[in-house]
Amino acid sequence: MKHQEILFSNDINSAINKAVEGVEFNRLFILVDVNVDQFVMPFLADNVNIKGAFKILIKAGDVNKNLESLSYIWKQLVEAGATRHSLLLNIGGGMITDIGGFAASTFKRGIKFFNIPTTLLGAVDAAVGGKTGINFNSLKNELGAFREAEAVIISTKFFDTLPLSEIKSGYAEMLKHGLLSSEYSFSHLLDYDFNNPNHDMLLKLLQESVEVKRKVVADDPFEKGIRRALNLGHTVGHAFESTAMQRFEPISHGYAVAWGMLVELILSNMILKFDSNILNVYARFVNENYGVFHITCDDYDALIELMHHDKKSNHGELNFSLLKAVGDVKINCEVSSDDVKVALDIYRDMLHI
Amino acid sequence: MKHQEILFSNDINSAINKAVEGVEFNRLFILVDVNVDQFVMPFLADNVNIKGAFKILIKAGDVNKNLESLSYIWKQLVEAGATRHSLLLNIGGGMITDIGGFAASTFKRGIKFFNIPTTLLGAVDAAVGGKTGINFNSLKNELGAFREAEAVIISTKFFDTLPLSEIKSGYAEMLKHGLLSSEYSFSHLLDYDFNNPNHDMLLKLLQESVEVKRKVVADDPFEKGIRRALNLGHTVGHAFESTAMQRFEPISHGYAVAWGMLVELILSNMILKFDSNILNVYARFVNENYGVFHITCDDYDALIELMHHDKKSNHGELNFSLLKAVGDVKINCEVSSDDVKVALDIYRDMLHI
Repeated sequence: MKHQEILFSNDINSAINKAVEGVEFNRLFILVDVNVDQFVMPFLADNVNIKGAFKILIKAGDVNKNLESLSYIWKQLVEAGATRHSLLLNIGGGMITDIGGFAASTFKRGIKFFNIPTTLLGAVDAAVGGKTGINFNSLKNELGAFREAEAVIISTKFFDTLPLSEIKSGYAEMLKHGLLSSEYSFSHLLDYDFNNPNHDMLLKLLQESVEVKRKVVADDPFEKGIRRALNLGHTVGHAFESTAMQRFEPISHGYAVAWGMLVELILSNMILKFDSNILNVYARFVNENYGVFHITCDDYDALIELMHHDKKSNHGELNFSLLKAVGDVKINCEVSSDDVKVALDIYRDMLHI
Repeated sequence: MKHQEILFSNDINSAINKAVEGVEFNRLFILVDVNVDQFVMPFLADNVNIKGAFKILIKAGDVNKNLESLSYIWKQLVEAGATRHSLLLNIGGGMITDIGGFAASTFKRGIKFFNIPTTLLGAVDAAVGGKTGINFNSLKNELGAFREAEAVIISTKFFDTLPLSEIKSGYAEMLKHGLLSSEYSFSHLLDYDFNNPNHDMLLKLLQESVEVKRKVVADDPFEKGIRRALNLGHTVGHAFESTAMQRFEPISHGYAVAWGMLVELILSNMILKFDSNILNVYARFVNENYGVFHITCDDYDALIELMHHDKKSNHGELNFSLLKAVGDVKINCEVSSDDVKVALDIYRDMLHI
């Protein structure tokens, strides 16, 4: 996969203009959802490139990341005369960059696209890595393609429109990247104070974080090996997310990952002797900033069943990415159900549930 | 793009078994249309691998190479429990390998697939080169992806079920590959006698022909440059195909290409001094084996309009791949409408229309 350009800037209009002017194309399209159209587009009102573009507007929310919205985007591209040489700007959260990237990857067998994430989660996770897709038949990201954006333009300026819980949700993926990187990076991340936001510091931390992901993806673009490191926290996290859904009390992806990582660091400590001091510091940070996800021992069997169904498991065993130390990940760790139950017990102890 | 395996064999069951056994997967799926199911599957009835596979059956014909059939394939894959480690065998003509390749490229961001073409056109053209896709909004191949099959298994044994006109249709693409290759290859192709079919000779010619295409594709997997050489005959051919459609007298793709190549060789002679002896030999071969496509000078403007709409033209000019000599192609030749009209005049002269 070729190297994509990632621009970090809080002067967003100049960054967009620079990126757009650096690419050859014959027609410009932008994809936004109704929320982005209302709250974010005013930031870009004076942008000469955006003004001249054809706007494709879809409904917001993961529930609309489906074949119906995708067909609508394809149809709009056809009807507005997009060709193989057109360019699509996806402006929005992960939902927009996922579906827009998939639409662009498959329209005339692939046209160029940019991702301009407007959420922290989108910036740190969805906009980089080449994963595009939609939900299908009630399954998340069941259809999609691997294809990187021509350019990704990241600004923390957009995040002013987000509630604190959304910032925290995205931050969980940054914590994951810190754990995959170094004790130095990770400790910096734990110093950040959500109650005292600092956009320049956040942009800098974000830049480091995206670099960690970029390196892992470059080593394994099609997720055949080491990229599974990025699943840290996600096997348990997805099980928590599904459980919350079944309780009709949905939780955000990032919170689920923050809690899931705690369980997986406990497993790392049990199985790979991951440092218990760091585990304790992380547990405290989670407790203070994310609170707790409530489970009882009656939930264990259902949670383990959900972990089995997670697409990361291969031949049916429970398969985790775990840490020997910060920055030292082991993929494909097989873990018994009994060990997972012990880890869930410890999780409840640490969070006083 | 990684190198795909292409097996040529008239012992089709052994070839399939060898290919299937050489790949790791957890579940086998086959995609066929109703015609293939009726006429071709009996050849494979004893194949142990095919027997155990889950069969996905769709309607036949290019008109069904659409989003509805694609959704049905995706749904069948989900419901029959396909995972990222499943394998799909596309058994059929170009319609099946196009839509099946697209389904496999996009299911869980890509699962492995084999192409087993059952028509000559499919074998020589559609099964190799990584182009997958469907028609959308009345436009041919409007949606799709570039993705090569893990393996392509080619046997001339299947072609026994085909009418002669279908063989000739596929053969036109082989003639094109001959023109792109060498005078030696091309003259061999002109020696073939359709009235006296020889399956071993055809398999050998086919193998050479696929090799020509494989080399061109390897040099330019995403069709940014030299791969446009493979459009030889297609700019005019597509215009003939569309005209025939408008007359409600559809012609097959291969016949359109055979006639289209004649017009484009005439242009090659006019503009690049392509050898007029070879042009005459080719015109005779076309006349004897394909007959003529009737046009009058009243059709010229509409034909040129159609050529402008062909997706191969870039900024709006008439853009052809032409030959300086057999084996020496020039892509991106700009040609005036007046020159095209002269070439159409000569085409009518040569075919005594």
